[in-house]
Amino acid sequence: MEVTMMQQFGVIGLSVMGKNLALNIRNHGFSVAGFSIDKPEVDALAKYEDDKLKPTYSWEEFINSLEKPRKMLIMIRAGKPVDMTLEKLTELLEPGDIVIDGGNSNFNDTNRRFKKLEEKGIHFIGMGVSGGEEGALNGPALMPGGDKEAYDKVSPILESIAAKTEEGVPCVAYIGPEASGHYVKMVHNGMEYGIMQIICEVYDVLRTVGNCTNEQMSEFFEKWDEGQLHSYLTEITSKVLKQRDDLADGYIVDKILNVASYKGTGNWMLEDAIKLGCPITVIAEAVLARFASKATLRDGCMPEFKGKVDLNQLITKLANAYYLASAVSYAQGFQQLSMAAKEYGWNLHYPAIAQTWEAGCIIRSSMLKDIENAFNQDADLPNLFKDKYFNDIANKYTTDLEEIVKLAVEAGIPIPTLGAAYSYLKTIFNPKLPQNLLQGQRDYFGAHTYYRNDRDGVYHMEWYTEK
Amino acid sequence: MEVTMMQQFGVIGLSVMGKNLALNIRNHGFSVAGFSIDKPEVDALAKYEDDKLKPTYSWEEFINSLEKPRKMLIMIRAGKPVDMTLEKLTELLEPGDIVIDGGNSNFNDTNRRFKKLEEKGIHFIGMGVSGGEEGALNGPALMPGGDKEAYDKVSPILESIAAKTEEGVPCVAYIGPEASGHYVKMVHNGMEYGIMQIICEVYDVLRTVGNCTNEQMSEFFEKWDEGQLHSYLTEITSKVLKQRDDLADGYIVDKILNVASYKGTGNWMLEDAIKLGCPITVIAEAVLARFASKATLRDGCMPEFKGKVDLNQLITKLANAYYLASAVSYAQGFQQLSMAAKEYGWNLHYPAIAQTWEAGCIIRSSMLKDIENAFNQDADLPNLFKDKYFNDIANKYTTDLEEIVKLAVEAGIPIPTLGAAYSYLKTIFNPKLPQNLLQGQRDYFGAHTYYRNDRDGVYHMEWYTEK
Repeated sequence: MEVTMMQQFGVIGLSVMGKNLALNIRNHGFSVAGFSIDKPEVDALAKYEDDKLKPTYSWEEFINSLEKPRKMLIMIRAGKPVDMTLEKLTELLEPGDIVIDGGNSNFNDTNRRFKKLEEKGIHFIGMGVSGGEEGALNGPALMPGGDKEAYDKVSPILESIAAKTEEGVPCVAYIGPEASGHYVKMVHNGMEYGIMQIICEVYDVLRTVGNCTNEQMSEFFEKWDEGQLHSYLTEITSKVLKQRDDLADGYIVDKILNVASYKGTGNWMLEDAIKLGCPITVIAEAVLARFASKATLRDGCMPEFKGKVDLNQLITKLANAYYLASAVSYAQGFQQLSMAAKEYGWNLHYPAIAQTWEAGCIIRSSMLKDIENAFNQDADLPNLFKDKYFNDIANKYTTDLEEIVKLAVEAGIPIPTLGAAYSYLKTIFNPKLPQNLLQGQRDYFGAHTYYRNDRDGVYHMEWYTEK
Repeated sequence: MEVTMMQQFGVIGLSVMGKNLALNIRNHGFSVAGFSIDKPEVDALAKYEDDKLKPTYSWEEFINSLEKPRKMLIMIRAGKPVDMTLEKLTELLEPGDIVIDGGNSNFNDTNRRFKKLEEKGIHFIGMGVSGGEEGALNGPALMPGGDKEAYDKVSPILESIAAKTEEGVPCVAYIGPEASGHYVKMVHNGMEYGIMQIICEVYDVLRTVGNCTNEQMSEFFEKWDEGQLHSYLTEITSKVLKQRDDLADGYIVDKILNVASYKGTGNWMLEDAIKLGCPITVIAEAVLARFASKATLRDGCMPEFKGKVDLNQLITKLANAYYLASAVSYAQGFQQLSMAAKEYGWNLHYPAIAQTWEAGCIIRSSMLKDIENAFNQDADLPNLFKDKYFNDIANKYTTDLEEIVKLAVEAGIPIPTLGAAYSYLKTIFNPKLPQNLLQGQRDYFGAHTYYRNDRDGVYHMEWYTEK
């Protein structure tokens, strides 16, 4: 009698992310079955087949190869394919089985799917996965949300495959109920949009105001990566800048068309910010800057700097502006998380979220440790800049950010995110915002009423009768 | 035998907007019936009863008092009440009747309602109405969208009650099919958010950098209103600034709480901009600035200007910055209209839209005549700043906008919309945007591929193997 070993985990969808995650799981000693409706993908996985890695060629073979309760990860294109897959799985699975969606699904879809599968007794975990193909194979950051009970059953596998922080802590934590995992991934991506656009503007200032070569800029980013600006995006910017072209002379960065693409998770974050009333200006400007790069008419003047600057001073100020603006992008992300937690009734543990991002993911940076510390000291921090560390860096570096904004304006460089970071910092603690005038206008033309700053109640003015 | 005169038009909903529109219609010689489910509102209208104005106290009495095909305007709170009203009307109306929704309905709702009523043979017109209570009584700007055939039947009434431009042209035109009328109103409101926030920032610079009194600022706006900055919002800003407090000493503007409210049409515009990929940065920043004013922690430093400026020069530069930034707000609005027209298959006539806004509405300004001219000269203008007039003002005033941005930064004044207007102008014609770096980063971490600027095709780089 042949004894068939059952697999401990299954992966559906075997393109580069799914395949690499399956290999990562196998490499950590868990047995895994892989399935895809695309047969060549299964064939590609079959090259790695061994007693811990089993390619399967049908839904039934896949489902029947898994230990009960079954645990599986869907790693396919977000949207309709996920609904189709879940429909198929609903026919085959049993109550108690656990399905994880690791794609970049919209959190509204995840909430809907969670409820639908809950009716069948199937546990659904919406899990953000960050780190790209490299991360998938060697250690991604994972953001799972759903039933805590179900999470506890898959946590040994998730913790072993996840990236590890410098202290050796796995970059995975139970985020919270329902779609909170995908929500947190969406916010991760929005902050990523923000920081990437900030870097583009820093690059624009370096090349236009600093008149720097690609090699020089690459060196600056490399050097910054050794200090407090240490981050994956700083590191790869250095590498992108010095990469030679593979088809012609020169550097590839000068040949890449300057029109930004996007898959839209940053857009989703902004959509929900509008619903929540959350002022994520840096992220909004980053989303819109991608749109603008597609819509530009390209027949005007280029930025040009006619003044003189000391390059060393410029580099120092730019580094500080970059650091502070990145902090604003993070602060806005956490501001939206806390507004979402309140609106959707999710209990989110911010230090764990920050820790999850400390390795493996695209926005990993040494600043995330400071964010973790800030929320460990005050779990209800209303704004990251209320924390002493971040308040100090705002005090220390705002002048440099202002200098960079002014230099960019002199050179005619567009600075949507650096400008937005400046205005955000000048807004959040400002007791003298000018919106009193706006409320006066609204009451004048629409009788919308206003509050007063010297007494309670709602007021309407009988404005000049000659109106 | 008593002859009952039938009314030519009906109004449902008799709060201030509905009542004033009913009176406006009667004042222009048309007979009108009014109905509200709120009896005191009908009683209030009954005070004006005559042979041309008939209050009615039930759905049946209202419907039966109207000439066929019946023509009526719903003027109630947007959202569920409109659906409930339409459900009731569907029971009572006949094919060929015409129902106009004059509220600030979301264009997605209007599209849905249009299709539902079309099945019953009832014509549905979604109509934007701007001008507040004053405009409703004396001449609003009207933006009707729906079936052209139905519009033609109500156009005599709409044209007679609408505001008139300086040339005597009514501020109403057939906008286009389906929800295009409400869409255009939504864009109107978004541009209004933009310009109002721009004015707030101008005010902040005046009081902080210019150290001006309310009386002085009021005079500046009054003077500006006599020149190219002539607009309703310039005019009322002058009046709001000099209004004395009615409950205490001093000026009311200093007592109004600086927390902005909103009903959300600007938010809707931004939501759709995200779907369309339209970079309406000034409007986005204005929407988010209202959010920020609610979220501020109010315990930091106030803006303060330590430098010295020549007040006359400051006023001139500010006027030019205000003018140019307003032009950006309009340009972004028209950019979204043209992207929406393409996406939704609407044939929009931009000169007519601009003309509709030249009187009666909140954003009326002399600049709208220049916009009308621009689109008359080129119906397919890809961007308002491609037009000679607007290109010239960008060339003439960008330096002043830059100077104001720099002064505001020196004073620590948040300038979300002035900064966004600057960056937009430096982006739209810029052939050297820095998003080539961003595309390099995306290909590096996610194999997202890129286009090149020197040859066709899609490329992926084998980045440094040490990654």
